[in-house]
Amino acid sequence: MSESTDVQTLLKARYGAAAPTPLTTENPVISTLLQHRSVRSYTPEPVSDDVLDVMLAAAQSASTSSNLQCWSVVAVREPQRKQRLAALAGQQRHIEQCPLFLVWLADLQRLDATGERFQLRREALDYMEMLMIGVIDATLAAQNAAVAAEALGLGVVYIGGMRDRPEEVAAELGLPPRTVAVFGMCVGHPDPEKPTTIKPRLPGAAVLHRERYDPAANIGPVDDYLHIANAFYREQQMKTNGNWAEHSLHRVRGPEAMRGRDRLAEALRARGFPSR
Amino acid sequence: MSESTDVQTLLKARYGAAAPTPLTTENPVISTLLQHRSVRSYTPEPVSDDVLDVMLAAAQSASTSSNLQCWSVVAVREPQRKQRLAALAGQQRHIEQCPLFLVWLADLQRLDATGERFQLRREALDYMEMLMIGVIDATLAAQNAAVAAEALGLGVVYIGGMRDRPEEVAAELGLPPRTVAVFGMCVGHPDPEKPTTIKPRLPGAAVLHRERYDPAANIGPVDDYLHIANAFYREQQMKTNGNWAEHSLHRVRGPEAMRGRDRLAEALRARGFPSR
Repeated sequence: MSESTDVQTLLKARYGAAAPTPLTTENPVISTLLQHRSVRSYTPEPVSDDVLDVMLAAAQSASTSSNLQCWSVVAVREPQRKQRLAALAGQQRHIEQCPLFLVWLADLQRLDATGERFQLRREALDYMEMLMIGVIDATLAAQNAAVAAEALGLGVVYIGGMRDRPEEVAAELGLPPRTVAVFGMCVGHPDPEKPTTIKPRLPGAAVLHRERYDPAANIGPVDDYLHIANAFYREQQMKTNGNWAEHSLHRVRGPEAMRGRDRLAEALRARGFPSR
Repeated sequence: MSESTDVQTLLKARYGAAAPTPLTTENPVISTLLQHRSVRSYTPEPVSDDVLDVMLAAAQSASTSSNLQCWSVVAVREPQRKQRLAALAGQQRHIEQCPLFLVWLADLQRLDATGERFQLRREALDYMEMLMIGVIDATLAAQNAAVAAEALGLGVVYIGGMRDRPEEVAAELGLPPRTVAVFGMCVGHPDPEKPTTIKPRLPGAAVLHRERYDPAANIGPVDDYLHIANAFYREQQMKTNGNWAEHSLHRVRGPEAMRGRDRLAEALRARGFPSR
């Protein structure tokens, strides 16, 4: 990992020449956020329950829609279970290798079970809005957990591959109806032999609109980014399917590129999210 | 706001008697995360563009699925636009009152427009998976921005009401197809006259499962929480529709409780998210 915590240096790594002038140069929270990079190689050192408790408390401290708390998380440490989950996500070795694998769930089961126990109506659970609430709640929670982990010196990577085969992931984790894996998260101590780098993002001008959405933001700043990203790929000797536009569009070219996730709507219905 | 940054004290506020013993008592990042509470009253002091830049850089530093960056944000400061958005969210006064209102978007338009410019296929954009990616990307980004804002002494509150009338919000913000507001976020300097409190959440045992999902987590720890939450409502003199189970289930009793969000699936299709 880059050792710098200076906000200006971190902004330059994130934006290249397009970096804004920072408000402040030293803030431990801002530095932690800006320093994020995905970590996919770990030392064998375990992640303790004490660390997991802190990540959980951070996760639960995130906002949640109307305090409904429509999420849960499954902590997986057993090697064979991690191996099977890795296979369900297209053989991602870091899922096997990480000492702690978290599967973040949209969870409407808790409300459903509570409504059943107390004989209360709950018809809204069948609507798209409640799937959204579950996904948003799980994601807010997970991001706080990720920040907490990084603040404790750990590294994480999100695993969207938990949506490749949702029914099989559910069977592996014993998930009840009205729960579904939103994504996974590998957690571990970063392997110092495999340093990682801050990846540049789109210029701020591409994503920040003022008062109303400006379609021009999708042209000039995106073109600028193609150059910024190309320079990064060269520097890191990364092999990509062309420039950012080309390899990104390659990933969304059609259902054949979706690794099974073209079935997600169907899988969600099967998991008890009719999402009408 | 509570002035304590001691992790133990913050955990007790978050969990009551069920608080875990902390790993550490002093960590500025963990303290910032644990100190979160929604802030709905602000001083008139504006939020500067410098602060917005830092929030944006934090947001862009969050993970994003395959670096696709399927999100955008609209920063609204014009009083009349905030007033109209407040009306579209059921007259939430804090949207009018906050100096900066951010509307976080799932944005597949950028990829669509880029694919059109470079004549690249993009059929996956029509699938549920890509709506999920947009919602997850926007939410990861927003939560980092929220943490950055709080680290700078600001207060925020998420506004799910941006999903009450998605087509009208889109018209107000000039949103192109394949973009939709996931939620809003009020940002401002907390009014010291209206202090806020850390709200207790479910015991960790209700949301953390080990190896496999344990349905018993939805019974005992939820019953414990009914008592913890009741004590908090009494202490804060909050009026609720019964205990946590009763008022939460009341919110999901049926489409009539959803403030228009029973139409969300239809509105998403109209916004260019067929989500097949």
